[in-house]
Amino acid sequence: MYSTMQDAPLLVSRLLRHGSTVHSDSQVVTWAGDGARRRSYGETGTRSAQLAHALRDELRIREGDRVATLMWNNAEHLEAYFAVPSMGAVLHTLNLRLPPGQLAWVVNHAADRVVLVDSTLLPLLAPLLPKLATVEHVVVVGEGDTAVLDGCRPAVHDYEALLAGRPTDFPWPEPAETTAAALCYTSGTTGDPKGVVYSHRSIYLHSLHVNTVEAMALSDADLALPVVPMFHVNAWGLPHAAFLGGVNLLMPDRFLQPGPLADMIEAERPSYAAAVPTIWQGLLSELAARPRDISSLRRVTIGGSACPPSLMREFEKRHGVTVEHAWGMTETSPLGSYAHPPRGLTGDDAWPYRVSQGRFPASVEPRLIGPDGTEQPWDGSSAGELEVRGPWIAAAYYGGADAAGPDRPTDRFSPDGWLRTGDVGTITHDGYLTITDRAKDVVKSGGEWISSVELENHLMAHPRVAEAAVVAVPDEVWGERPLAAVVLTPADGAPAAGSGSDHGDLRAFLADRVPRWQLPERWATIDEVPKTSVGKFDKKLLRARHAAGELEIVTLDRLDD
Amino acid sequence: MYSTMQDAPLLVSRLLRHGSTVHSDSQVVTWAGDGARRRSYGETGTRSAQLAHALRDELRIREGDRVATLMWNNAEHLEAYFAVPSMGAVLHTLNLRLPPGQLAWVVNHAADRVVLVDSTLLPLLAPLLPKLATVEHVVVVGEGDTAVLDGCRPAVHDYEALLAGRPTDFPWPEPAETTAAALCYTSGTTGDPKGVVYSHRSIYLHSLHVNTVEAMALSDADLALPVVPMFHVNAWGLPHAAFLGGVNLLMPDRFLQPGPLADMIEAERPSYAAAVPTIWQGLLSELAARPRDISSLRRVTIGGSACPPSLMREFEKRHGVTVEHAWGMTETSPLGSYAHPPRGLTGDDAWPYRVSQGRFPASVEPRLIGPDGTEQPWDGSSAGELEVRGPWIAAAYYGGADAAGPDRPTDRFSPDGWLRTGDVGTITHDGYLTITDRAKDVVKSGGEWISSVELENHLMAHPRVAEAAVVAVPDEVWGERPLAAVVLTPADGAPAAGSGSDHGDLRAFLADRVPRWQLPERWATIDEVPKTSVGKFDKKLLRARHAAGELEIVTLDRLDD
Repeated sequence: MYSTMQDAPLLVSRLLRHGSTVHSDSQVVTWAGDGARRRSYGETGTRSAQLAHALRDELRIREGDRVATLMWNNAEHLEAYFAVPSMGAVLHTLNLRLPPGQLAWVVNHAADRVVLVDSTLLPLLAPLLPKLATVEHVVVVGEGDTAVLDGCRPAVHDYEALLAGRPTDFPWPEPAETTAAALCYTSGTTGDPKGVVYSHRSIYLHSLHVNTVEAMALSDADLALPVVPMFHVNAWGLPHAAFLGGVNLLMPDRFLQPGPLADMIEAERPSYAAAVPTIWQGLLSELAARPRDISSLRRVTIGGSACPPSLMREFEKRHGVTVEHAWGMTETSPLGSYAHPPRGLTGDDAWPYRVSQGRFPASVEPRLIGPDGTEQPWDGSSAGELEVRGPWIAAAYYGGADAAGPDRPTDRFSPDGWLRTGDVGTITHDGYLTITDRAKDVVKSGGEWISSVELENHLMAHPRVAEAAVVAVPDEVWGERPLAAVVLTPADGAPAAGSGSDHGDLRAFLADRVPRWQLPERWATIDEVPKTSVGKFDKKLLRARHAAGELEIVTLDRLDD
Repeated sequence: MYSTMQDAPLLVSRLLRHGSTVHSDSQVVTWAGDGARRRSYGETGTRSAQLAHALRDELRIREGDRVATLMWNNAEHLEAYFAVPSMGAVLHTLNLRLPPGQLAWVVNHAADRVVLVDSTLLPLLAPLLPKLATVEHVVVVGEGDTAVLDGCRPAVHDYEALLAGRPTDFPWPEPAETTAAALCYTSGTTGDPKGVVYSHRSIYLHSLHVNTVEAMALSDADLALPVVPMFHVNAWGLPHAAFLGGVNLLMPDRFLQPGPLADMIEAERPSYAAAVPTIWQGLLSELAARPRDISSLRRVTIGGSACPPSLMREFEKRHGVTVEHAWGMTETSPLGSYAHPPRGLTGDDAWPYRVSQGRFPASVEPRLIGPDGTEQPWDGSSAGELEVRGPWIAAAYYGGADAAGPDRPTDRFSPDGWLRTGDVGTITHDGYLTITDRAKDVVKSGGEWISSVELENHLMAHPRVAEAAVVAVPDEVWGERPLAAVVLTPADGAPAAGSGSDHGDLRAFLADRVPRWQLPERWATIDEVPKTSVGKFDKKLLRARHAAGELEIVTLDRLDD
């Protein structure tokens, strides 16, 4: 039997047309440090059409061509967000925090033909231009000194001059909804960055989800502040969802430091904001030092990395803001799970759910694959690597060897096409995810998994331990066993020292808290845990030091079970 | 450039699996008159699997086969809602209010192989069975006397006996998302009923929309009461949206009269309900006569036909419930537009927006086609017939001549595939729809449209007019002109009478309120306006009476402009 429904594709141009007509009065407010620029969604619609005309008629951009942005969150970036995919081209958001070498690498890998760049970011782009083989045009947004571009190979254009006088409507094409719309590279810690190509369909569906009560639930009554950058997984989908629901946007531009952020919130009074934990930590300290009125904020979403529960509680307690925890990644568009508590639970009863990674929506199907390769039950304790499936989840990386499929085995995609997230965790019977580890940091001991993070957290709760890192080391009998590397605090004023008896005490301390088979036999006392450039434990380096014999290992006898 | 997103179809089985796992604790509560039956979504999931096994293994239902339901809103109907489409068959919800002849017609037209029937509805079904050529199985849900089925041709089964002992998991197939999932016939006032076939895709997308803040915005904190029947456009999509978001359902079964409804609301305390205006009108009167505690209700959606603003205000004033107005039809799944006021407007300022038909979501694109066939501007005054386009809008009727397409012109679908709603209205610059007329009741005078409803409303505001109906009659010069048929109240105790001077007075009254060219020249005084069986003005009959010369027409001279 056939369906009698219309064959209407899910396209970014529909979000644009909807937002700029039904919600023509909604606004994008761009902070300028001491005030704000305001533009309606109606104007954003006509300017997006003008940008599309300029790209097509002046810069000769065709369907499928890549147009890159090296921009902060602002009104012009929003115009590019809609104009580029709507005209059938692909928006490539460049992560301005990538090392210059990686930045050049992704532009070349994506074969970008145009780069739209905020004038304040020209010092970052200019030195790279000689290496950017495919870039034909640089479009400079905003006032500023363009002298650094003198003599560069690509043609240089002024954004406003390029748009001026062009038609304010555009005959948006109707490609298949699975056509590429936007491209974002993950800043992988190992190897080259990997490109994820979002389709019109995936962006549209993700936007619908963002505006449901299961996720951010924003409406045209909200002024939403995406502190999360637009070059970081489409600012968690907020710009697209904003046009779907007429949600007003407050764009921070380059003013992301705690002080300017606090000023902006006090002045423009957003009802909602989204950012990574470090932003909230910084804002909390800033407000403690110099109070500002942030009472307009009712809810914030916190994600990007696990958030310390203490930060969530503190923010709520001091400022009356409901903090919502979410999980996702570049490969998941990025939502992901979202931690609303179950119905009826409030206050302290709700916290265990609220600090979890939350529940998955219908469009993100999860499964946990255990150490033996089988699917684990949702019992809140059986751990496995999280794999996900759904219409806004990546099946492959762009142009890479990491494409999925039964005939193309890969680390990141299962043979039946699910994304391997690299996260290890548990799911409760009612769908709450708790991530305990990165899969590469789990100790695989005799067909069972030991959580390095759990051991570390217990060890760091001991008064003698300043820091502790647990890594897997090869073991002839068990495959892998945990090595505990601890930084000790001085005892009785004496210098810190490690000995078998120190380690034995720590093991006894652990024995009260984890199963015996998880207790490390191998111990090392170190001066400090090596860290990555963003301050995370560098376990790769620690494993390498152990492999090179640089750590002095104390081995305790294995305890009988 | 290709997208790297997964090819994961949007299927009803995903809603089922999601709702019965992540939201396994959510509940469907079925009212039984003096108490309720409760079943969790986890149980609904296992019972849906058992039903699918029974249908496949016992009744030999295959993908694409039609399975009909003649049922009230209850837990078993919900199981059929998910089992039948998830197994690849098509759910055909039978409207138990159709005249028996039409009911038999739609079963035969759909070629239903199975009918699931509530035992209380057997007296309706049994007499029809001899006429139902394709029905092989009747499955009786609930206790009751099945003697009326003795000797009938189809095999008779007991629902619970059919499910008992079957496997509680089912290998749901993965058809294309555009596959047929559910079938609903419109109870057209003219001609045969017309079938609309919803796809898995259209149901899934509509569900996502229902749970956004633009529409009902339900969550697992809600207990939602769909008074609107599940045989009426999928109960406005609430059962599917409930599984998407874990929304608890309160099912009224056959207890739809105001008294039992009030008892049910007091006992089970739903937070939300959805029904047509007459239900709310009845409940309002019931509660005035015999108060009950309905304080749990925070919001209700009212739709299906235009709601008198006085009813909305009264319900809010007396019971503190926010009444939300919505527009839709069988052909639109059914949402449609939804009347949330614009941001910042509350109280009296919000009412003009709240009593309108509301705003369209991104997935329902509207246009107004004016009398000259051109698209009308969104200026709040230019009227046109509303046409809509989107992924959950019908493109054709099932098996009918009304299929769309440039080579298949039809009354209900435009050559470029848009649905002609048959409603005439205006849209404001910010997207608020106001429906003023049915297209067939508009007077098409010299290339301009005259709203019959507007003239009627003005006339009925005159103290001498009890009722007034305005219909189009042929005119040699203008194509059509309005004929005003009025029922006069007695003046000064004398019997009601119509005369040229009465009509002249009424025209003068109108002349202060509408443009001169809209003023009727033709007038008739009648005893009462003929009505349809549901109490609406029967303008078709009035036009027929005029055509047959049965009305005494007074013709006034046309006024100069």
